Amino acid sequence: MKKLTTFLSFVLLVLSASAQNEDSVFIRHIADEILTNGKSYEDLRVLTKQIGGRLAGSPQMVKAEQWGLKTLQGAGADNVYLQECMVPHWVRGGKDEATAYFSKNGNKKLQTKSLYVIALGNSIGSMKPLKAGVIEVKNFDDLEAKKDQLKGKIVFYNYKFNPKFIHTFEAYGDAVKYRGAGPSRAAKYGAVGVIVRSMSHSTDNYPHTGSTRYDEALPKLPAVAIGLQDADWLSTQLQNGAISVSLLTRGRFLPDTIGHNVIAEIKGSEFPNEYITVGGHLDSWDPSEGAHDDGTGIVQTIEVLRTLKILGYKPKRTIRFVLFANEENGTRGGKKYAEEAREKGEKHIFALESDEGGFTPRGFNVTGTDAVYQKFLGWSKLLAPYGGTDVERGGGGSDIGLLRDFLHATIAGFMPDSQRYFDYHHTPNDVFENVNKRELELGAVNMTALIYLVDKYGL
Amino acid sequence: MKKLTTFLSFVLLVLSASAQNEDSVFIRHIADEILTNGKSYEDLRVLTKQIGGRLAGSPQMVKAEQWGLKTLQGAGADNVYLQECMVPHWVRGGKDEATAYFSKNGNKKLQTKSLYVIALGNSIGSMKPLKAGVIEVKNFDDLEAKKDQLKGKIVFYNYKFNPKFIHTFEAYGDAVKYRGAGPSRAAKYGAVGVIVRSMSHSTDNYPHTGSTRYDEALPKLPAVAIGLQDADWLSTQLQNGAISVSLLTRGRFLPDTIGHNVIAEIKGSEFPNEYITVGGHLDSWDPSEGAHDDGTGIVQTIEVLRTLKILGYKPKRTIRFVLFANEENGTRGGKKYAEEAREKGEKHIFALESDEGGFTPRGFNVTGTDAVYQKFLGWSKLLAPYGGTDVERGGGGSDIGLLRDFLHATIAGFMPDSQRYFDYHHTPNDVFENVNKRELELGAVNMTALIYLVDKYGL
Repeated sequence: MKKLTTFLSFVLLVLSASAQNEDSVFIRHIADEILTNGKSYEDLRVLTKQIGGRLAGSPQMVKAEQWGLKTLQGAGADNVYLQECMVPHWVRGGKDEATAYFSKNGNKKLQTKSLYVIALGNSIGSMKPLKAGVIEVKNFDDLEAKKDQLKGKIVFYNYKFNPKFIHTFEAYGDAVKYRGAGPSRAAKYGAVGVIVRSMSHSTDNYPHTGSTRYDEALPKLPAVAIGLQDADWLSTQLQNGAISVSLLTRGRFLPDTIGHNVIAEIKGSEFPNEYITVGGHLDSWDPSEGAHDDGTGIVQTIEVLRTLKILGYKPKRTIRFVLFANEENGTRGGKKYAEEAREKGEKHIFALESDEGGFTPRGFNVTGTDAVYQKFLGWSKLLAPYGGTDVERGGGGSDIGLLRDFLHATIAGFMPDSQRYFDYHHTPNDVFENVNKRELELGAVNMTALIYLVDKYGL
Repeated sequence: MKKLTTFLSFVLLVLSASAQNEDSVFIRHIADEILTNGKSYEDLRVLTKQIGGRLAGSPQMVKAEQWGLKTLQGAGADNVYLQECMVPHWVRGGKDEATAYFSKNGNKKLQTKSLYVIALGNSIGSMKPLKAGVIEVKNFDDLEAKKDQLKGKIVFYNYKFNPKFIHTFEAYGDAVKYRGAGPSRAAKYGAVGVIVRSMSHSTDNYPHTGSTRYDEALPKLPAVAIGLQDADWLSTQLQNGAISVSLLTRGRFLPDTIGHNVIAEIKGSEFPNEYITVGGHLDSWDPSEGAHDDGTGIVQTIEVLRTLKILGYKPKRTIRFVLFANEENGTRGGKKYAEEAREKGEKHIFALESDEGGFTPRGFNVTGTDAVYQKFLGWSKLLAPYGGTDVERGGGGSDIGLLRDFLHATIAGFMPDSQRYFDYHHTPNDVFENVNKRELELGAVNMTALIYLVDKYGL
């Protein structure tokens, strides 16, 4: 018996080594194809340069949907379709403006300085110049301490991105509450406007927009983000005396409108009713080209499809490639996709999102069982030669979270290196030129390899 | 006895866990200091923007040495000194020029196009316009096949950087022979000039210089590198008919001159006669600012010193911080340093070089014994939170190789992510603006942590 056991163990070992070798060879083919004939960089050029920023409800988003349909078809999908959903329709309404009025060295004569600001997404414009004294607060505790001084003022949240976090998304998670909740928390104490230090540790002066969320019970204050150099200037000047700022923003909501997820499929050969989803979000903030956020996730998704098809891979399970609508200011696309999957009783085993930029790969984060985590750890050895060394628990992506909540799917996020992401995030500087072709392609290599492994072995 | 063994094992385990915890805490302090108060980025701004490109023998290199002395002193070294060595003194002599003459669509009338070229380092100028027909060769085999057609021609080596290598230094290693040996191999068959496709897979048109090496027995041909867009244009045009190119380069050697390694020390408290070296090279190619090559290695080296001092770390061994002279076209600084160490009978246990750019850290490569490699693998767990996950065998750095050859030191190279390095390497685009502050700093974190571990535990 012992001999038989030993023999069987040996057979299993050989089979496993041979499977591992087969996987390693196939992943090498994936890498060779993408690094030699990859289309993602050129796709990104078209999306960013010919279409540009594409907020939900904008004409650019309609163009982007049509481009997505055509490009997914060209990449060899079995079928491609639009999934309709209602999306919010916020418009900026024009250029955001801010001017600081201050006096220097006790000189009574007022000087002015133009500040580089951008209205927060979903914020309601001042519509006409709103001039008021500025009061700086370092954080919410400081706001509470100064609550009696805020009436009629513009509150300047000057909370700094914490450089000690190595993974910059943690610094973002730590700081973003001032953009999200800052306007309403200030409105509660009678403030009339809000300036938020941009969520970044960049060395430039680009302001970073992004969604804010009003408390419906309170006045909706005009709110802008300010570039870091101007934020530091403002803080320094405030130490030397009073400053007024005149804000002019024009944001408003139009009625909800129709948007679409763009979906492509390759049908599964063994388990056609088991779904694997890979995607990114097609929309982006208006003042950027939406390159790293999330043009790169979109073109990587399409590249996964193109590569699997051109290598003749026949998936066991049905793979869906989804360009989600409206991640930035509503997540309605992700919601629609998960709701419809639930209504139809679809079995979703896995969803992968790329929405952390097109930087050099580090690995994946995954929300799933211990057994799934162990599988990912094993697979990371196959991905390590292409940079996908790390496996972290938790995370996934804004557009696929509900697939876990509704349908218990394992969800994962592609995890590129995070150091440069918040240099560009939600700024006019999130442009094609700041994406490196090979970094983008290596991300697609790792994503394609992971989808292949999940499809082949299941979860 | 068994109980005693078990108890002792337990004590060792606790001690080891406690040491690991102490190391992890100290490395966290290193990271906090560098990410919060780091000086490397500002140091790099001064070196690149106020001094600029600094080839051996140039006035800028003299300025850079003085800056290095002052900055190492400011970082808290016990002593700082210059180590003199003779260095080659090649000068470019002016702007390199190339014009292509070609006819289109069978039209007899010649058209011209200016090509973006840069003379190879150490190459001898044409001094006056050198016009000749161009013949393209794909590689050395192709050169041999066409050897009877090369007389009087300009040979165009159009060997492409291989995109299938994941680590781009392997693509460089594969392609660089055309820059190094190409001119003399073409001279052997009577060619009169050489154009080399730049060693890069960038998407721009910057030409990449770098050293060439003449065979002294053959004529020394004028030789230039050409940007990738112009290389592709030239290749396409050659398929449609003959092209002549007029080259004008002015490179020449002046007599060897005096250069210096700039060296700082912190004296060891327990083993002052055991040396650990950390360094980069201070020189750079002339048409660039020498930002990633190797300004970043220089400022990281100084940051290791500053950080160890400010955290009050008292090294057991003597640590030397060396800004090497003349890596680019002679490696005379590294040679001098190793020769003097050998003459003095110094005991060098370890040397670390940073000369692969200031990009996000991946880890270290190391040339040493199996036991040393195992130590590095153990330490990589402490570095992984800061990106220094990988340990590769082999490698080190051009300036420290002789410390291994002469004195059996373990040598290691800091290994950042390599995807963007050859976008900038040896081009006018290797500028401060293409260095990311946090990526640079995280490199310094990993280097400081490694030096701390090597000093504390030995090798």
